[in-house]
Order: sequence, then C-alpha cells, then structure tokens
Amino acid sequence: MPLILFAAPPLWPEYRDALPAALAEAGIDATLVTEAPPEAVDYIVYAPVSPLQDFAPYRRAKAVLSLWAGVERIVGNPTLTQPLARMVDPGLTEGMVEWVVGHTLRHHLGMDRHIVNPGQVWDPTCPPLARERPVTILGMGALGSACAVALTALNFPVTGWSRSERPGLLHGENGLRQALCNARILVTLLPKTRETENLLNAERLAWLPRGAVILNPERVEPLPQDHPFWTHPKVTVTPHIAADTRAVTASRVLAENIRRGEAGEPFLHLVDRARGY
Amino acid sequence: MPLILFAAPPLWPEYRDALPAALAEAGIDATLVTEAPPEAVDYIVYAPVSPLQDFAPYRRAKAVLSLWAGVERIVGNPTLTQPLARMVDPGLTEGMVEWVVGHTLRHHLGMDRHIVNPGQVWDPTCPPLARERPVTILGMGALGSACAVALTALNFPVTGWSRSERPGLLHGENGLRQALCNARILVTLLPKTRETENLLNAERLAWLPRGAVILNPERVEPLPQDHPFWTHPKVTVTPHIAADTRAVTASRVLAENIRRGEAGEPFLHLVDRARGY
Repeated sequence: MPLILFAAPPLWPEYRDALPAALAEAGIDATLVTEAPPEAVDYIVYAPVSPLQDFAPYRRAKAVLSLWAGVERIVGNPTLTQPLARMVDPGLTEGMVEWVVGHTLRHHLGMDRHIVNPGQVWDPTCPPLARERPVTILGMGALGSACAVALTALNFPVTGWSRSERPGLLHGENGLRQALCNARILVTLLPKTRETENLLNAERLAWLPRGAVILNPERVEPLPQDHPFWTHPKVTVTPHIAADTRAVTASRVLAENIRRGEAGEPFLHLVDRARGY
Repeated sequence: MPLILFAAPPLWPEYRDALPAALAEAGIDATLVTEAPPEAVDYIVYAPVSPLQDFAPYRRAKAVLSLWAGVERIVGNPTLTQPLARMVDPGLTEGMVEWVVGHTLRHHLGMDRHIVNPGQVWDPTCPPLARERPVTILGMGALGSACAVALTALNFPVTGWSRSERPGLLHGENGLRQALCNARILVTLLPKTRETENLLNAERLAWLPRGAVILNPERVEPLPQDHPFWTHPKVTVTPHIAADTRAVTASRVLAENIRRGEAGEPFLHLVDRARGY
C-alpha cells in the first residue's frame, strides 16, 4: 500500500476530502498523510508553498506530483532527482479559458468606458465584429490551444505562436514579428523558462499595432502595494484567479498518476528538466 | 427593373455602397433611390427614423424591408398593409452574442472589482467555473438561441425560456418561475410586444436568487441625462451597441428578399402582425 505525502500544508483543507475520494474512485488503496519519515514515502504531492525543499532524503519516492501547472520554482531544485509531473487540471484549463475569453471580450467591446462612465456619455459607436479583431496567442500548449479553440468559436481570427516549429503555428523570431504585428489583442500563455523570460522586450512590444491590448494571465505575485501597475491608467491587475487548480479535478489527475506509478505505466505530464517545463 | 426606395436617410451613408454591391452580387438589376413618387416604388427599405410614416400611397410596393430587427415602432402603423420583413442580420446576431457572452463573463469573473479597485485589494478568491454558474435566457429566437450555443460552448449550464411551447425549453408561467429561480445570470432577448412588456415585474424579479445579475440587451434609448440608471451603483448602461445592423451583411439579406420578391418566392423573416414580431 503506497504512502502518499501531501506536502503543501496551506492546500490541505481543500484536498483533505477531495484526494481520498479521487483515490477511492480510481480503486487505489493508499495511505495519505501530511507528515512521514522521508524513507517511507512513495509519492510526494507538492507545491512550493511547502517547507519541504530538500528532496534528497526521499530516496524511495517514485514521483513528485506538482499541484501547480507552473513548475519554475521546483524544476531548478538540485536535490530533486525524482520524476516531476506538472499539474494539467481540466478545471484549471476551463478557468483560464474563461478569464482569457472574458478579458478579450472586455477589450473588444470597450466595456471599461461603460462600467466607469462619470460623464454619462452615450456613445453608440459600434465595435467591430470579433471576426474583424485579430487575436494572437503566444504559447500554444494545453492552455493556449484551449483558448484558441474558444476564441475561434466566437469568430476571432486567432494566430498562434509557438517556441518550437509546429504545423499551423508561427514560430521563431520572424514568426514572432508577424504574430505581434497582426495582434489587436495579445495573450501570453508561455511557461516561465530562461527562453521566455523577457521575451516581450521594448523592441518587440513596438511591433504591436497602436492601441493593441496585452492580456497576461501568467503569474506576477504578490504585487507590492506600491507597485506602479496598481495606479497605471492602462493597467488592470487581477489577482491570481485566472485559473486556480481545482481540488476535485486536480485530485483525479493525481490519482491517475499514482495509479500509473503503481501499475508501472509512464507518468502523465512529466517535466522535461532541460526545457524547464 | 424594380425601383427600391431607401427610406432611412440617416443610414444612407452606410448603405450607399453596400446595398448596390449586394444587389449586384445577387444578380439583381434594380434602381435604388432615396426619393421617388410613391406609386412607382416596388420595395421600401425602411427604418422608423424615416419621415415616411404613411404607407398608404405605396400601393405597388411588394414589401417593406425593415433595417432593424425590432419592428415595434412599425408593426402597429395602420397604414402599413404591405408585407413587412424584419431584419435578421448575421452580423447583428454575432454582435449580440459577443455582447451577451462578454457581459456574462464580466459578471462571472467579477471583473468590475478589478477594473475599479482604488483600495488595491488583492483578493485571490477564485470564481466558480462556468459549469457551476447557471444562465437563463428569456426568449429563444434567433438571437437567444445563438447566445445559448455560445454560452454552452463555454460550459455555462443554459436554461432557455420561450413564450410558446417548444421542445427542450421551459415555457409558460410555471416555466418562467423555474427559469428565474435557477438563474445566476439572466439574459432577456424577447421581442417587444404587449405580452412581453413588463414581463419582469417586482413579483417575478423576486424569484431570482440573491445576487443574480440581469443582462438586458433590449433597446432602452435614448436614456435621459437625469435617468437614475446612470448613477445607480448596480446598473451599467451601455449604449445601443449590443448589436447594430451591419450594412454589408444586412444588405445581403435585403438583396435576397428582393430577389425572392422578383422571383415570386416567399419573403424571409416576415412579421406576423397578430403576434407583433
């Protein structure tokens, strides 16, 4: 019977019931604990908010299963030699699609000037149709692709840019220029790696058409109270709500990976350490 | 060669090029004018902003083709004996879907408190997923149905209520109660008729769950400067932009109906005078 260490204390209240339920649903007989001697642990369910930072003593562990999609705070840990799986949670993807589509439509419709309209201006200027408003997505992984599907269903012409060459997508420096030149609304959904950090620099931002909007649902937190974004007239800060991992759906993903580990099958969503995601 | 009277002077600049192009595209050889002796006119392209209010002299006219989807300002005109066709413009439907989906997501995501956030509050409370947020649509015509499809694609559980009994939809007083009791977000897309006016009265509004939001993309204009809606903290006024008739797509609909009139085929989108839409 495998021993599962849940190493993310602040998240335990959410998972206390959801994870045992998912394990039972998957037919896995396991012991789930929040503390254990390292040498007895078979699986580590993990988020970087945990005090656990040294993975070396967990020699028996078959995998570290991240509760977060972003693994930039784990992947560089030199003590981590166990296989590391990212969280790819259907609930997280849905939440992300809702945030991206919602904010795309917010800017497409010019909603802000109706929400805050102290002059009581009745300006019946009609926005263009979505089919006339090109959207570019940087990063066409699970999240970017799902957003592209939803935006395309609403008739937005969507251009996808990927770091690696893939059919139907722009890539590379020339592709990036083309993707940005054409974007009325730009959505960034890239993993945080050495290659993607500062990808949008001043030169590349200048490729965007005048008036273009950037939606950045990537993580920038916590935002200090004196950060200029809070009061910049052209910036809206939303807290980390674009997509939260949902305990019920995420627990099913964890249970499936534990089932695979016990059955000797390959883990889902394994992180490539060299690429960093 | 039919004579088409374009009787909506404020809209002429939009249609001056678009309508001849659509007629040419449909292979119709016609004369398009903005003034003509009534007895010579074969088709009247019309909006109530026109000075034309007496249709009696237009005895030869085969149809009055409305430029607007709503015909409440024409249908009761006692001089109108000619067939009357509503505008069902795919561009208008698309614009309506974009407005409805955008404002549904605005409230679903609690966007306003991020757009206007003077206290710089970082509240990472995650909204529920769309699949946990029931939406009810009152009126399941062309516009309501298109909105239902788009919202369903985003996983919102959509309930449709129709005045007439139709499969899969709620209807009647009991159905209305059920539709409202279940609505976290309510969208009204009913035609304006004697039956639908004041459909949402105080008693029925009380059936909505506490905190429910109403999206009313129906026409309320012009809104006087001293109207309490402008300053009510729980009301956002948007001008008449939810869905404008788009000259290019609407002209194709007009041309198709003129083609049908010339070929002796039944007109599309004829108004039922008894029902009022």
